[in-house]
Amino acid sequence: MERIPSSILKEPDPLFSFNRRIIDATHDLACCFKLNYAFYSAEGSKGLAALENAIEFIRDRGVPIILDAKWGDIGHTAERYAQTAFERLNVDMATLNPYMGEDSISPFRAYIDRGSFALCLTSNPSRDDFQTRKIALQRSGESADSAPMYELVAEKIRDWNANGNVGAVVGATAPEALARIRTILGPDIPILCPGVGAQGGDLEAVFLASEAGNHANLAVNVSRGVIHASSKDDFAEAARNSALKYVDLCKRLFTDAIAANP
Amino acid sequence: MERIPSSILKEPDPLFSFNRRIIDATHDLACCFKLNYAFYSAEGSKGLAALENAIEFIRDRGVPIILDAKWGDIGHTAERYAQTAFERLNVDMATLNPYMGEDSISPFRAYIDRGSFALCLTSNPSRDDFQTRKIALQRSGESADSAPMYELVAEKIRDWNANGNVGAVVGATAPEALARIRTILGPDIPILCPGVGAQGGDLEAVFLASEAGNHANLAVNVSRGVIHASSKDDFAEAARNSALKYVDLCKRLFTDAIAANP
Repeated sequence: MERIPSSILKEPDPLFSFNRRIIDATHDLACCFKLNYAFYSAEGSKGLAALENAIEFIRDRGVPIILDAKWGDIGHTAERYAQTAFERLNVDMATLNPYMGEDSISPFRAYIDRGSFALCLTSNPSRDDFQTRKIALQRSGESADSAPMYELVAEKIRDWNANGNVGAVVGATAPEALARIRTILGPDIPILCPGVGAQGGDLEAVFLASEAGNHANLAVNVSRGVIHASSKDDFAEAARNSALKYVDLCKRLFTDAIAANP
Repeated sequence: MERIPSSILKEPDPLFSFNRRIIDATHDLACCFKLNYAFYSAEGSKGLAALENAIEFIRDRGVPIILDAKWGDIGHTAERYAQTAFERLNVDMATLNPYMGEDSISPFRAYIDRGSFALCLTSNPSRDDFQTRKIALQRSGESADSAPMYELVAEKIRDWNANGNVGAVVGATAPEALARIRTILGPDIPILCPGVGAQGGDLEAVFLASEAGNHANLAVNVSRGVIHASSKDDFAEAARNSALKYVDLCKRLFTDAIAANP
């Protein structure tokens, strides 16, 4: 709310008004919209009503929706989060936290016409607290080998993808690790890639790291770099210009990849 | 909703009606109430209104409230979840997921009069996917030692507790691991312990494992074992009887501990 222009704050539902203008200005450019649950829940019931309105507004324009709430819980609770995402809010995809293991993923992947992205390697500085720590790989009778935690998570995501509807969240800020994760996942599992823009990730490096054959199976998320491209009344136009810049770069990278793998 | 007695389902706000009767029947016995966000969000805006009503109803009775949503996100998003928990919903404590590291914990511990419990070792079967895997401990110039992931998380929780307001979630289904975690945390950091009751955890084993001196600093959570003690119209009375049984057992264990460490 602190970053919404003052002219919008005067409207009766400023959060939805802001969303609506961003969606109007960018829906022909976006492959998906990712909605961040926390920024709605922090505004209480009004905020959650704005979330519902934004989802309906996007659905009317035919663009898939990712709910970013990073839920993860034991099975009977995860069922209720899946119900929240896929029935109550009626989004197409959700982000999930893998720390509690498969129990927390299964109720989501049971919705075979919906998708989930489990956190694998995130874009924030303290990912190194756990995600990059080396896990000892158990091999009986030999001295133990090891691999970073995020590689073990990528292997699990590959298994969890039995219904073809589980992908991985891999931040844009570590392209070398992304290349390793792409090798583990294989070419077909989609990667949701936040961290381009405000967080400093390099889109070209990310595309090259994820590339497999002539596609990258990459949903690049730019949030603050688009929606807060301007803090003034021209914010919607600025969002469109920023989104266009990223789309043009994606198209160029894609064309180059096709040319290299005709 | 499927487990709420049919007489309650006829009332205008059945979720809150059910909550209210459980709270009325048990508030003099509970050290805290833990509310599970998913079961409210799955019912949409009506469910979230019932959550707000339940919180207000508990606050009026002076019992601390834990919001169980297991949030975990990058810093600027975690700030919004902390705001959701501690300002909008005005609960006393929240559960958090540690996978993204300290960035996801700091905005919560910045509320110095509120508390958080980070997941350490959970009670569900697939905790073994990651939480019990061995992490290589880096020691320069020596062959690497290793420890289960949950021990590394316990060490981080001990560090995150600098303001005295971060505890650990440790499931009741692994008392030996709980004893090891208690040793790492020291005697003063509280442990929230789910998994007694429906999930099969043994309260006495848990108490003994967490015991340090003459206290256990343990908040034992029994959910389904209390609220669904009966599925009939006597559910509130059955909840009280079940809660009394657990409280009596806790008192006996505590008395024994005091006697052993006078």
